[in-house]
Amino acid sequence: MSDHIRAAIIGSTGYGGVELFRLLASHPYVEVTAVISSSAAGTLFSEGYPHLTGIYAGVLEDVNPAAIKEKADVVFLATPPGVAAKLAPELLETGLKVIDLSGDYRLKSPALYEQWYKKQPADEAYLKQAVFGLAEVYGERVKGASFISNPGCYVTATTLGLYPAVKEGFIDPDTIIIDAKSGVSGAGRGVSLGNHYSEVNENLKAYKLNQHQHIPEIEMILSDAAERPVVTTFSTHLIPMTRGIMSTMYATVQGGRNAADFIELYRSFYEGRPFVRVRDEGILPATKEVWGSNYCDIGFAVDPRTGRATIVSVIDNLVKGAAGQAVQNLNLMMGWDETLGLRFVPVYP
Amino acid sequence: MSDHIRAAIIGSTGYGGVELFRLLASHPYVEVTAVISSSAAGTLFSEGYPHLTGIYAGVLEDVNPAAIKEKADVVFLATPPGVAAKLAPELLETGLKVIDLSGDYRLKSPALYEQWYKKQPADEAYLKQAVFGLAEVYGERVKGASFISNPGCYVTATTLGLYPAVKEGFIDPDTIIIDAKSGVSGAGRGVSLGNHYSEVNENLKAYKLNQHQHIPEIEMILSDAAERPVVTTFSTHLIPMTRGIMSTMYATVQGGRNAADFIELYRSFYEGRPFVRVRDEGILPATKEVWGSNYCDIGFAVDPRTGRATIVSVIDNLVKGAAGQAVQNLNLMMGWDETLGLRFVPVYP
Amino acid sequence: MSDHIRAAIIGSTGYGGVELFRLLASHPYVEVTAVISSSAAGTLFSEGYPHLTGIYAGVLEDVNPAAIKEKADVVFLATPPGVAAKLAPELLETGLKVIDLSGDYRLKSPALYEQWYKKQPADEAYLKQAVFGLAEVYGERVKGASFISNPGCYVTATTLGLYPAVKEGFIDPDTIIIDAKSGVSGAGRGVSLGNHYSEVNENLKAYKLNQHQHIPEIEMILSDAAERPVVTTFSTHLIPMTRGIMSTMYATVQGGRNAADFIELYRSFYEGRPFVRVRDEGILPATKEVWGSNYCDIGFAVDPRTGRATIVSVIDNLVKGAAGQAVQNLNLMMGWDETLGLRFVPVYP
Amino acid sequence: MSDHIRAAIIGSTGYGGVELFRLLASHPYVEVTAVISSSAAGTLFSEGYPHLTGIYAGVLEDVNPAAIKEKADVVFLATPPGVAAKLAPELLETGLKVIDLSGDYRLKSPALYEQWYKKQPADEAYLKQAVFGLAEVYGERVKGASFISNPGCYVTATTLGLYPAVKEGFIDPDTIIIDAKSGVSGAGRGVSLGNHYSEVNENLKAYKLNQHQHIPEIEMILSDAAERPVVTTFSTHLIPMTRGIMSTMYATVQGGRNAADFIELYRSFYEGRPFVRVRDEGILPATKEVWGSNYCDIGFAVDPRTGRATIVSVIDNLVKGAAGQAVQNLNLMMGWDETLGLRFVPVYP
Repeated sequence: MSDHIRAAIIGSTGYGGVELFRLLASHPYVEVTAVISSSAAGTLFSEGYPHLTGIYAGVLEDVNPAAIKEKADVVFLATPPGVAAKLAPELLETGLKVIDLSGDYRLKSPALYEQWYKKQPADEAYLKQAVFGLAEVYGERVKGASFISNPGCYVTATTLGLYPAVKEGFIDPDTIIIDAKSGVSGAGRGVSLGNHYSEVNENLKAYKLNQHQHIPEIEMILSDAAERPVVTTFSTHLIPMTRGIMSTMYATVQGGRNAADFIELYRSFYEGRPFVRVRDEGILPATKEVWGSNYCDIGFAVDPRTGRATIVSVIDNLVKGAAGQAVQNLNLMMGWDETLGLRFVPVYP
Repeated sequence: MSDHIRAAIIGSTGYGGVELFRLLASHPYVEVTAVISSSAAGTLFSEGYPHLTGIYAGVLEDVNPAAIKEKADVVFLATPPGVAAKLAPELLETGLKVIDLSGDYRLKSPALYEQWYKKQPADEAYLKQAVFGLAEVYGERVKGASFISNPGCYVTATTLGLYPAVKEGFIDPDTIIIDAKSGVSGAGRGVSLGNHYSEVNENLKAYKLNQHQHIPEIEMILSDAAERPVVTTFSTHLIPMTRGIMSTMYATVQGGRNAADFIELYRSFYEGRPFVRVRDEGILPATKEVWGSNYCDIGFAVDPRTGRATIVSVIDNLVKGAAGQAVQNLNLMMGWDETLGLRFVPVYP
Repeated sequence: MSDHIRAAIIGSTGYGGVELFRLLASHPYVEVTAVISSSAAGTLFSEGYPHLTGIYAGVLEDVNPAAIKEKADVVFLATPPGVAAKLAPELLETGLKVIDLSGDYRLKSPALYEQWYKKQPADEAYLKQAVFGLAEVYGERVKGASFISNPGCYVTATTLGLYPAVKEGFIDPDTIIIDAKSGVSGAGRGVSLGNHYSEVNENLKAYKLNQHQHIPEIEMILSDAAERPVVTTFSTHLIPMTRGIMSTMYATVQGGRNAADFIELYRSFYEGRPFVRVRDEGILPATKEVWGSNYCDIGFAVDPRTGRATIVSVIDNLVKGAAGQAVQNLNLMMGWDETLGLRFVPVYP
Repeated sequence: MSDHIRAAIIGSTGYGGVELFRLLASHPYVEVTAVISSSAAGTLFSEGYPHLTGIYAGVLEDVNPAAIKEKADVVFLATPPGVAAKLAPELLETGLKVIDLSGDYRLKSPALYEQWYKKQPADEAYLKQAVFGLAEVYGERVKGASFISNPGCYVTATTLGLYPAVKEGFIDPDTIIIDAKSGVSGAGRGVSLGNHYSEVNENLKAYKLNQHQHIPEIEMILSDAAERPVVTTFSTHLIPMTRGIMSTMYATVQGGRNAADFIELYRSFYEGRPFVRVRDEGILPATKEVWGSNYCDIGFAVDPRTGRATIVSVIDNLVKGAAGQAVQNLNLMMGWDETLGLRFVPVYP
């Protein structure tokens, strides 16, 4: 168990990459030794991100696995769909540890990947090797692993909110409806009419109903919890804010459980895991209460009139939904305290 | 059928009242002759609302039914809960027509009102007299009526989106889940920590799960459509925007209908009603597309994997959800074209 | 003086063009007979702008001056820089009246245009013919004209706020500093990192200090008022909002005038012009108070400690700063009441 | 020089207080031992600020100087105007170090305080004792002091942007005009119509022109730099965002200096002071580039046409403008590295 590691970030012109840099820069055991972007190689990192002026003076490097191996022990991939499928094997073969933030290694079935991502899947051997890093559920598998597939942002908020209830039979898995809502940064820094300020501000849109590529990932985890195939309704909405995801989830309660029962179950399930905070009865979390932090906050309402539970789960999509959970997974891989570099208070207001 | 009418607005310091003023000021057949506020009587209307500088030079008047009767033919009540319960009978007795935008006359059962509003219900005789003004559903009853109870904002978006499907058996009424989302103006102009800019901006909150006072109103209409009691799950969320409501609604499809079937049904049901726009298959409406206008736009997705329909319905909460529908009801009451004073293009962007 | 006119809009995929459509659609004397876009010809107008669903069923047409002449009496050009320079002469030669919303005909000096716009200037003969349509200052010249160059958005807010004071010697023209602030829609619908939601939201930027192409246009008007060359400091800032411009303007007071003197001067200067509203002493206008309307609201502060006046002027950049003033100019050209089609209350909140 | 200190925060229900808590919670040498609020004593800190759930389990305490002395070595006062005037002397007499974030000890003249704050000034002996903590200008005086008056947010952005230029005669101090712009959190958490979301969103307001209580504080510092009395024009604007201040400052250049000269001067003046970042020529800072951090970023434009310099200075009003500078002052007082607890990357986006 080392207490120093050198890290490289590939894909550092995107929001996931720059958020990784922010978090790793404060991590006591990590030194960022290479910031890599194939599209902007040769330019100053702070040119595209002036908030880094005086903080990181280095130039963005091109992707070169052998050269990275010279400089780094672990590589974070914050790349667009399809890039990690090709790149991760090369990096792993040099002996680097790899944490992939893209969707390329999340689904274990190549056919499913192709169906939902419309891209060439990764090699099946590597798909099997990649440990799915939903830290509070599969954390034991992460420990000691050298290749992590970091979960999606919607997936993290949703499955942390549903897993215990499905596993313990508190809800009927066939009745799950997930109404998810995300800030705009989840769609990345690429420009499009869909993230033009004048189109998003003072507007609310639903998109990709029943078609979002995170659906099979959610169903994979819920099926694991239920120990049988689970199919869900999953909707996504674009909220006029930069950061934050809320999943409002509905399901029919089994066994007459009430809100207090849910709270007790979740507190027990997540005991000792500092980043999941289960709210008291009658209190629902808001996205701003986790803003800039690695927390996932969960609240419950159970309605005796309808027999349904409503579960509300919130995260910061760029932290617990991406870079923060990646750092948490690094901590687990290395055998460190999982909160290292992540012990900050949410920024409020 | 007159083509000129004098109107008074009571409660004109709130957002509903000032929006009524905006709309009535452009109505070709209406003259606003009195703008009334018990709390701010004696001050200039434009003092509290400087955007009215040079547009309305008058002073806010106190509430006096007899004096109003001298000046006006119809009164709009945009008052807080409980006020119209007392005031409407007095106004009606002078012979004035009354359109109440508050919730006081919407529920026909005094007990239900008391349960959800925690206030003294209105007199039952007047509850019976008040016609529920969901214009596209109950418009025939509105024609010629002299006392209208204008529906709630969440209720309008939700029930226009569900009524045809429930009535025609396209969905199972026992499976309806409504995930509603509103801009901040829906909560009025009263100040509170809940609408402080720094608390709302860059934030997303769920509130009043299963407890919103619009629930019995929605169930009243859906039960009417289903011709049997319907109970629903209804959640509300506060979106960081000023105007707009979206209801995302889920239900199990019956009879194997697909999205095209829903679209056909809704276009047929709302034929000749210019303010409901049913979108083409694959297209979902956004709130900005109805901003500032009286439209209710509806879109559909049907998922063969789950057998569920998702219906998305959007309105401007202050127009179709309040002042606009009130003007539409006035038009219907008077036997005018229902679009008078409401034929404007949504403001975009 | 006709009371019916057919209008075509060229450049209708931009925000200026679609706002023209919104205003003209409510104008009692105007019929929009052609909506034209070279880049999107052949597609439905409502495809790119779904808020027009059910309002305008037509297809976008290609640019063809002869065909336009068949259908229209007046053409509005809401095109990118450089397009009107070529297109306006062709349109004028067919006998069409032309109102150009771009900057191509505003500066009377081709050299100045080339210097600030870095583009080929328009033909000098047409530059001379184009009447500069700052309606409250040069309205008399607009009457009866057939070719109008509509002023820029920053220019309108700024010069309506400064013209009377400069003309009457209330301020020293050599001391004028203009700190201007604009919502994002002013930069148009084209996508760029600069208008990406996540980059603009919760952010405030200064840009193009001393280099904005509206500077020579402002100085042209102020020099006209001063009857000698005036040079100004002009800064622009991007505000996280969609609509609205505020110019905060500073200058040294001459002749010991106080705020009341300024108010009296401006009320007298703009007497009979309904779209300029001069606020009472101690009251400053906010952009939301003119939102969606053609008003320009102006307020004053004079500081005896420094001997300087601060003048605050606000407009909606897409209305008084573009489409609204264009409609106002049409009204003036046609000899109609200048408020036709523009008599609506600002949308608040 | 101790490397451990116990801190109490008074006024912890306001945004300044809760931001102090956020920063101190990550400070390696500081332990927060008391969180105090006279208005909310006895309630959980996390009740009013749910983002602190699981982070701080303590109850808010009442104000009791003797009890505080038992628990703490230093007290931060984040209290409304007038409170510190009474409280600081009592705290100092117990031997506590005091850092006051309010305006009560900033102006050294009681008469000036009374004139601008309309409140009873603090005792003159304590006014003299309080060291004005503009860290990059008066940091030497802060070292070893036991009573610090922390500067205002507008003051910090403005004077860090002007001090070197005034001191070195680069600009004429008689020509300084400051156009300042602030996010909403600067006005605190108290509810009012002025910070109601629907009134602020999509709006831009100027307020308190020439009357802001930060004016004498700015002039005090600039007069110190100029070594003669300086009077300025200072305007404030409310921007629809939560955090961030920008001061856009105008003045006539002396000695023919250009932008490069300014940059060289400022880099030299702030050498070794890590929280001031002077931008390269042609680049202006945006508020988001310092969001959540203690940086003050400064950029320049010099216009040969007008002979004026424009200086743009940005800070996060709650960090460098309040809590962050207070922590920086604590570090200086204690003889620690001034960046302790403040070495985090701005949060972007």
